[in-house]
Amino acid sequence: MIYKAPAISETVKTEVVCPNDTNPMGMLQGGRLVQWMDIAAAVCAEIHAEKICVTAMINKVDFKHPAYVGDIITIRAKITRAFNTSMEIFVQASSRKVLTGKNIVISEAFFIFVAVGEDKKACNVPSVNPVTLSDKKLYREALTRKESSVNTK
Amino acid sequence: MIYKAPAISETVKTEVVCPNDTNPMGMLQGGRLVQWMDIAAAVCAEIHAEKICVTAMINKVDFKHPAYVGDIITIRAKITRAFNTSMEIFVQASSRKVLTGKNIVISEAFFIFVAVGEDKKACNVPSVNPVTLSDKKLYREALTRKESSVNTK
Amino acid sequence: MIYKAPAISETVKTEVVCPNDTNPMGMLQGGRLVQWMDIAAAVCAEIHAEKICVTAMINKVDFKHPAYVGDIITIRAKITRAFNTSMEIFVQASSRKVLTGKNIVISEAFFIFVAVGEDKKACNVPSVNPVTLSDKKLYREALTRKESSVNTK
Amino acid sequence: MIYKAPAISETVKTEVVCPNDTNPMGMLQGGRLVQWMDIAAAVCAEIHAEKICVTAMINKVDFKHPAYVGDIITIRAKITRAFNTSMEIFVQASSRKVLTGKNIVISEAFFIFVAVGEDKKACNVPSVNPVTLSDKKLYREALTRKESSVNTK
Amino acid sequence: MIYKAPAISETVKTEVVCPNDTNPMGMLQGGRLVQWMDIAAAVCAEIHAEKICVTAMINKVDFKHPAYVGDIITIRAKITRAFNTSMEIFVQASSRKVLTGKNIVISEAFFIFVAVGEDKKACNVPSVNPVTLSDKKLYREALTRKESSVNTK
Amino acid sequence: MIYKAPAISETVKTEVVCPNDTNPMGMLQGGRLVQWMDIAAAVCAEIHAEKICVTAMINKVDFKHPAYVGDIITIRAKITRAFNTSMEIFVQASSRKVLTGKNIVISEAFFIFVAVGEDKKACNVPSVNPVTLSDKKLYREALTRKESSVNTK
Repeated sequence: MIYKAPAISETVKTEVVCPNDTNPMGMLQGGRLVQWMDIAAAVCAEIHAEKICVTAMINKVDFKHPAYVGDIITIRAKITRAFNTSMEIFVQASSRKVLTGKNIVISEAFFIFVAVGEDKKACNVPSVNPVTLSDKKLYREALTRKESSVNTK
Repeated sequence: MIYKAPAISETVKTEVVCPNDTNPMGMLQGGRLVQWMDIAAAVCAEIHAEKICVTAMINKVDFKHPAYVGDIITIRAKITRAFNTSMEIFVQASSRKVLTGKNIVISEAFFIFVAVGEDKKACNVPSVNPVTLSDKKLYREALTRKESSVNTK
Repeated sequence: MIYKAPAISETVKTEVVCPNDTNPMGMLQGGRLVQWMDIAAAVCAEIHAEKICVTAMINKVDFKHPAYVGDIITIRAKITRAFNTSMEIFVQASSRKVLTGKNIVISEAFFIFVAVGEDKKACNVPSVNPVTLSDKKLYREALTRKESSVNTK
Repeated sequence: MIYKAPAISETVKTEVVCPNDTNPMGMLQGGRLVQWMDIAAAVCAEIHAEKICVTAMINKVDFKHPAYVGDIITIRAKITRAFNTSMEIFVQASSRKVLTGKNIVISEAFFIFVAVGEDKKACNVPSVNPVTLSDKKLYREALTRKESSVNTK
Repeated sequence: MIYKAPAISETVKTEVVCPNDTNPMGMLQGGRLVQWMDIAAAVCAEIHAEKICVTAMINKVDFKHPAYVGDIITIRAKITRAFNTSMEIFVQASSRKVLTGKNIVISEAFFIFVAVGEDKKACNVPSVNPVTLSDKKLYREALTRKESSVNTK
Repeated sequence: MIYKAPAISETVKTEVVCPNDTNPMGMLQGGRLVQWMDIAAAVCAEIHAEKICVTAMINKVDFKHPAYVGDIITIRAKITRAFNTSMEIFVQASSRKVLTGKNIVISEAFFIFVAVGEDKKACNVPSVNPVTLSDKKLYREALTRKESSVNTK
C-alpha cells in the first residue's frame, strides 16, 4: 500500500476579484468562490491520486467576511485523509487588500472527491500519511466528519 | 409584519452543460454547478427581500449523479423560512438527457442568504408564509437545521 | 403522429446582469440578451423534439427598454408550432429591479429551430397541440409568420 | 450637417469558434454569433456617431450554413444610413475552414442602433454619405426596410 | 514553391474593453491584450499556412499607453516572413476613445508561430512574397530578429 | 528605505487546461498562458509594492512544450529587482499530466510592472533584498536585462 504526505499534493490557487465575480455591491459572490475552491481541491485530489477526480460532496461552507473587486484571493487545498476511493480535502480561502496588505480568512470547507478510472468507475487511491501535528489532527477528525455525514443523510 | 408565500419568489434557472463546465471526462464540475445554484438562490432571496442579498452559508452539497456535455440542467430555488435578516433557500438541480428526455435530481442543498441595505449592513426581511404541505415541512425543519448548524460550529 | 402541448417544453432561464454584459453606461448589451434567449429557445426546442436543435432563423428582435447591472432577467421560451423538421419558439425577456420589484418586458422574438439527427441532417419533430387560447393564437399566427418570412427572402 | 462615408466606420471582427461557442455537435450556436455581430455593429455605430450606441432592433437573422470548432469567423459591419438619432448597420459573417481556406457567408442581418448622450437620452448622429454603388443601394433600401419595420409592428 | 503576399492573410480583430478585462483602476490588463493579439496572430498564420498553427515565441511586448473600459481596441496582424515551418507575425494594437475618436497605438509585438500537421509535427509553410515597401522592410528585418533571438537564448 | 525579500511576495497560481483554452488540436493557446502568467505576476508585484500595478513590458516568452486539456498548470511568479517605480518579475509555468504526475517547465518570462498611485501616476516601490543564491543571481542579471532592453528599443 502506498502512503503519501499531504504536503506532496498541497495546492495554491491565486485569483483577483474581477467585476463579474461580484454582486452589484462589488462583493465577491459565494458561488464563484466555491467554484475556485472546487478547482483547487480537484487539483489537490488529482495530484494525490494520479487519477481524474470528481466532487462527491461539499461540506458546510461558511462565508465569514466579504471580499471586494481588486482583492487578492489565495486558496489553499490540502488532503486530510483517504478512504479507499474517496479523499477529504480541506480548503481555506483568504483575501488580501492590495493597499494595506491586510489578510483575512474568508471561507473554509471540506470537499470530498472520488477518483475515477478510464471506465468512469471509482478506483482506489493512495493512503494519507499525516506528518505535522496539524495534519494529524485533520486526519483524526476526518473520520468523525465522515461518520457524522453518513448519519445525517 | 409582511408575510410572503414561497411561490412568489420561486426561481428557475436553465443551463446547458458546455465543454468548459466539465472535467476532462466530460463530467460537469461540482463547483460550476454550485455557482449556478448560488445565482438561482440569490435571485430567489432578492425577490423575497427586495434587497441585494449575499451568501452567508451553504449547507452540505451532495453530488448524487454526474451530468455530461449537452445535458440540460434545471435549477429550482425556493425560500423555506426567514429569520430576521437571513433566509434559508432550498435549491434542487436536475439534469435531462436531450435524446431520451430522462430526468434525474443531481444535487440538492440549503443556502443561507443575508439581505444587505445600502450601508452594507444586514437588514430585516419579510417573513415566509408556507402554503403547501411541502412548504410547511421545509419551514418547520428550517428551524432544526438552523439550530444544528449553530451547534456544530 | 405525436402531438405535444407547449406547456411540456416551456423553459425559464434566470440571469442577473453582470458588468461584462453591459456597455460603458451599464446597459445590458442587445447581443448578450439574444444569446441568453437563444439558449432558452434551444432548450425548449430540444425538450419538444428530443433531438439536438440548431437555430435556423431569428425573426425581428425589438429592445423595448434597457436593463442595468444587477437587474434580474427572466427569459421564457415556449413552442408555438412545428413544421416537419422545424419549430417556431416564442421568447419573452423581462427585467426586474431588485429594490422595487418593478417588472417590465424588455424584448420579445420568434426563433426558428431545426432538429438534427446524429447524421447532422434535419429530422422530423412531434407536432404541437395548442391548449390555451394564447397557445392557439400563437399557433395560428405562426403559419402567417412562416409565409411572410418566405416571401420577404 | 455632417456627412460621413460608410468606409470610415467599417469594422472587422475576427473570432475562432471555440468549444464553448458550440452545441454538443460542435456547431456554432446562433446566439453566440449574434453576440459577436452585435459587438461589431456597435463599434461601427460608435465610430460613426462618436457616441455610446445601444442596440434598438435586430432585423431577421438567417443562419445559412453551420460553422464548426476551429473555423475562423470574420464579421464585417458597415453603416447603411442614419435617421436623426438611429443608424442602420449591415453585418455579414463568414466562416473559413483552416485546412482548405474555403470561405462562405454564414449569416447576414441589419441592426438598428441609437446613439445616447451622457444623460442616457437619444442624440443626433452624422448623416451617411454613400460612395460606392453597393453603399448607395443599401442606403436607398434602408428607407424601405425602416418603413416596412414600422408597418409590421 | 508557393509564395503568398502578406495582404492575403492580414487579419483585423476588434474588441471593446469590458470591466473584466481591466484592473481595479479600469485599465486594460496587459495579459488580456496579449491574448487578443495571440488570437489575431494565430488566425493570420493559419490563413497563410492553411494549417493549424501554435505560438512558439512572443518577442518583447511593450505597453505604450493604457486603455480603459469602453475603449475600442483594433488589432492588426500581418505576416512578415516564413522560415520553413515557422512564421513571424507582426501585431499592432491601437485603442480609440468613443467620444473623441482619438486613436493611438498601445502595443506592438512580433509573434512566432509554427504550423502543425495532423500528426502534431511541424510542417512546411508557403514563403512570403513582400509587396509594399513596408512589407519589404519587415521581411528583411525578420532575419535579423531571428538571428538575434537565437543568440540571446 | 524599505527592503523586502522576494519570498514575501512569491505567488502561485494553479489552473487546469479547459477546452476553451486550447486550439482545435487540444493544445493550450500561448496567449491564454500569458494571460495567466500576467495575473500571477501582477499579484506578486502588488504584494511587493502594496499598490495597484500595471504591466509595462513582457520580455521574450518562449513556449517550450505544449500542454493539453486536463493538464494542471502551475505558475510561479517571483520579484527579482525593483527600480524606483518599476519591478521585474520572473514567471515560470509548468504543466503536469494527471495520470503520470510528469511535470515539465512549459514557459518562462520576465515581466516589468509599474506601481501606480490613486492619481494613476507611477510611484516608488520598496527595494528587493535578495536572500538565496538564486535570488541574488536573478537580481544581478536584472540590471543587464534592463540595460539591454533599453538599448534595443
